[in-house]
Amino acid sequence: MEEQQQNALRKTSTSPFQSKPIRCIVKLGGAAITCKHELETINEKNLDTVSKQLRQVILSCPDSGKVLGMDWSKRPGTSETPSTIDGCCDEFKVDFEKFVVVHGAGSFGHFQASKSGVHKGGLCKSLVKAGFVATRISVTSLNHEIVRALAKEGIPSIGMSPFSCGWLTCERNMEAANVSMIVKALDSGFVPVLHGDAVLDTSQDCTILSGDVIIRYLAEELKPEFVVFLTDVLGVHDRPPTEPGAVLLREIAVDEDGSWSVVKPNVQDASKQVVVTVAAHDTTGGMVTKISEAAMIAKLGIDVYIVKAATEHSRIALSGDLKHNVPDSWLGTIVRPLRQQQ
Amino acid sequence: MEEQQQNALRKTSTSPFQSKPIRCIVKLGGAAITCKHELETINEKNLDTVSKQLRQVILSCPDSGKVLGMDWSKRPGTSETPSTIDGCCDEFKVDFEKFVVVHGAGSFGHFQASKSGVHKGGLCKSLVKAGFVATRISVTSLNHEIVRALAKEGIPSIGMSPFSCGWLTCERNMEAANVSMIVKALDSGFVPVLHGDAVLDTSQDCTILSGDVIIRYLAEELKPEFVVFLTDVLGVHDRPPTEPGAVLLREIAVDEDGSWSVVKPNVQDASKQVVVTVAAHDTTGGMVTKISEAAMIAKLGIDVYIVKAATEHSRIALSGDLKHNVPDSWLGTIVRPLRQQQ
Repeated sequence: MEEQQQNALRKTSTSPFQSKPIRCIVKLGGAAITCKHELETINEKNLDTVSKQLRQVILSCPDSGKVLGMDWSKRPGTSETPSTIDGCCDEFKVDFEKFVVVHGAGSFGHFQASKSGVHKGGLCKSLVKAGFVATRISVTSLNHEIVRALAKEGIPSIGMSPFSCGWLTCERNMEAANVSMIVKALDSGFVPVLHGDAVLDTSQDCTILSGDVIIRYLAEELKPEFVVFLTDVLGVHDRPPTEPGAVLLREIAVDEDGSWSVVKPNVQDASKQVVVTVAAHDTTGGMVTKISEAAMIAKLGIDVYIVKAATEHSRIALSGDLKHNVPDSWLGTIVRPLRQQQ
Repeated sequence: MEEQQQNALRKTSTSPFQSKPIRCIVKLGGAAITCKHELETINEKNLDTVSKQLRQVILSCPDSGKVLGMDWSKRPGTSETPSTIDGCCDEFKVDFEKFVVVHGAGSFGHFQASKSGVHKGGLCKSLVKAGFVATRISVTSLNHEIVRALAKEGIPSIGMSPFSCGWLTCERNMEAANVSMIVKALDSGFVPVLHGDAVLDTSQDCTILSGDVIIRYLAEELKPEFVVFLTDVLGVHDRPPTEPGAVLLREIAVDEDGSWSVVKPNVQDASKQVVVTVAAHDTTGGMVTKISEAAMIAKLGIDVYIVKAATEHSRIALSGDLKHNVPDSWLGTIVRPLRQQQ
């Protein structure tokens, strides 16, 4: 008994993060961190900038600050020894912010999943089973690269696959998803990095669990202060952003029943118009899915920022400052509970 | 209720593997599948041969048989499109054997873990925290390569990290390790591939959970028909195998209390001598740990075969034939419950 208490004490004394609220869940959109049209190719420049921005907000560490890199592995094809880890001080960083990173697949996994129809289930078919394995190989290799990019910047990132975490779906909806290990990782001062994954489904054997669905589920469970979606466009527009005259929707208000309306720019009856025009170019379930998922999160009382990755706008969104002050120059879409507007 | 029953039925109808016992847990020793003295370098030749041998015993698929490769990803640094997946038939393979693969770290992870002292715990130290992240990056990259090598041979391999599975230690001993997801993966016809990992420890923050400890735990939980340790030497010898006159111990019998003795070759009082001489060259806890772990497994009534990887001897061990017949020409160490000898 005494020993148990001692253990408990010791545990408390080494987990100063435990009582800290979760600051942010950030989605790295597949289109933002990979080259969409090049099979299994990372957008290195974007990923590098995103990692640096995340370092600033997670570690409260300025760009010029000394960083203890946490990727000590060599790159494939090189014989380089790991970069030096000297000059590491044993000081204890307490200004760590709790972040969870979830990323999409982009040009990883999609080929394998669509070629085999993993999302439709049926593991008794050899092709589906092979596609399941091939999809996981592809998405976990992206996960590995993202963990490395973040670790290089000194972010204590930990790759966690939904499959390995034991997450299951039923009829393609989340069924069982234990977040206790994610909470433990956060309480130990790590940044869990999850991803869209091939998972087992209790009704159809298997399916694809998307990063957006994971984000919503985690938002419900972890109640972060805000959620950021990093994408490859400025935000949500009233029509395809490449069309002339497309207008960026600056703010969307979500009612308690989940219905939403455009608050800025103040166009009469804008919301109905948006639903139609956005849907019209939404063949992949991209923007409408994103608004719906964002609305579900805002309904919980959580601000959602949809913003272009690796820009000054994404840096501001990740800092959390938008909660109190939205600069006129800021470009992006805020999806926010209605009561906060009043 | 009716829907639940239908779901249950559907589930049963698509999981013909559920009732099948677990055939084998196989340890791919770090020294056997990596180049020990070259940082983060895989022994490609051995890994390739091991993967082919595993295919034969898991899929009952002869070497010449057509295989549906399950790694459809390109290699780093190449722009190659994935190999063709045409010619894939939708037939349902029922002669799948349930295997679990666990691998060690070899030249992956050790540098990062020893440089930072992850095994000693203390995540409040920046170096330990960084080393934890760096160790996981290194060991998961090896895991990824092993999963790919197996998938290339048509083995439906699924990487599962102990950390992500939620496994915890307390004072460096296994505390909480839920195997339900491993069982679900097996029941769905997959081959889980686990690895030695950096994990959270409830008494000292973190530690290293070795592949050998994982094997023992899984043997207790899953009760496989037999366990195979693939190493870089022929088996357990009475002294360092490089010393002149070293004798390979062919068979070790384990009593119900866990004590063990050498049965073959029949040397009087051999067991005591072995304990001493093996311990003498066991600076890394290698062979003595291996015998102890093997003895703990044999105590459960499970045969353990310690054998050199990528040889005819390992092929025979993996086939399970040694249970009934040990050819005179077979080289390796059998660790077996005493009652089976009588």
